Amino acid sequence: MKVEHIGIAVQSLEEADRLFSILFKKTPYKHESVESEAVKTSFYQMGETKVELLEATADTSAIARYVEKKGSGMHHIAFEVEDIREEMERLKKEGIRLLNDEPKRGADQKMICFLHPKDCGGVLVELCQTIQEA
Amino acid sequence: MKVEHIGIAVQSLEEADRLFSILFKKTPYKHESVESEAVKTSFYQMGETKVELLEATADTSAIARYVEKKGSGMHHIAFEVEDIREEMERLKKEGIRLLNDEPKRGADQKMICFLHPKDCGGVLVELCQTIQEA
Repeated sequence: MKVEHIGIAVQSLEEADRLFSILFKKTPYKHESVESEAVKTSFYQMGETKVELLEATADTSAIARYVEKKGSGMHHIAFEVEDIREEMERLKKEGIRLLNDEPKRGADQKMICFLHPKDCGGVLVELCQTIQEA
Repeated sequence: MKVEHIGIAVQSLEEADRLFSILFKKTPYKHESVESEAVKTSFYQMGETKVELLEATADTSAIARYVEKKGSGMHHIAFEVEDIREEMERLKKEGIRLLNDEPKRGADQKMICFLHPKDCGGVLVELCQTIQEA
């Protein structure tokens, strides 16, 4: 299990891209919108891990609610797994609650599942598995 | 620049170790106390990145204040740099405020410097450089 990416909720993707491009000495390798989550994102490759910046595109987005409540900042950590359904099953048996019972489609060609922060030390943990296109 | 580790502030290291050992399917590869920061920590290797759990050992610790204010959760992201003084100089010139003017000694054989979260999209960013022992 490796850290696939770290998600950072931001108020303005444009402003955050300006800041993080200075910090990282590089520009994002891609921008992507995920309509089902009502977010637009940018990705930076940092070694084998990525940093994902997320801006809400609608008030109903979880990112909008997060930024309103806590301000911009670290939002989640995503861990790459080989078989997301197997991991979901395993963790459920261990008593860790899943926020979605079925894997859902995320950004960056991934199937994803979030775990309940209360069962992960206050951290919003995402499991993700890369979709192998046929 | 790669993600060296992700720091998670916890209330109880023992309880968090139990949870994260289930999640990660492994036990921490080390425990370490950093007296200057009044914390005890445990480390998990996750691919090339580490997850560091931090529990305060005194009320004066920044981790104690964080947990009291925000509860346990993601606390900082550390990026490995080759020359920490050079990076500190570069970022200062870019208008990013440093929380310490001189690198200080952190856990895990590192010289570290924190950047002001207000200049990093609400994220507490740590720069770190591994100390090469003579």
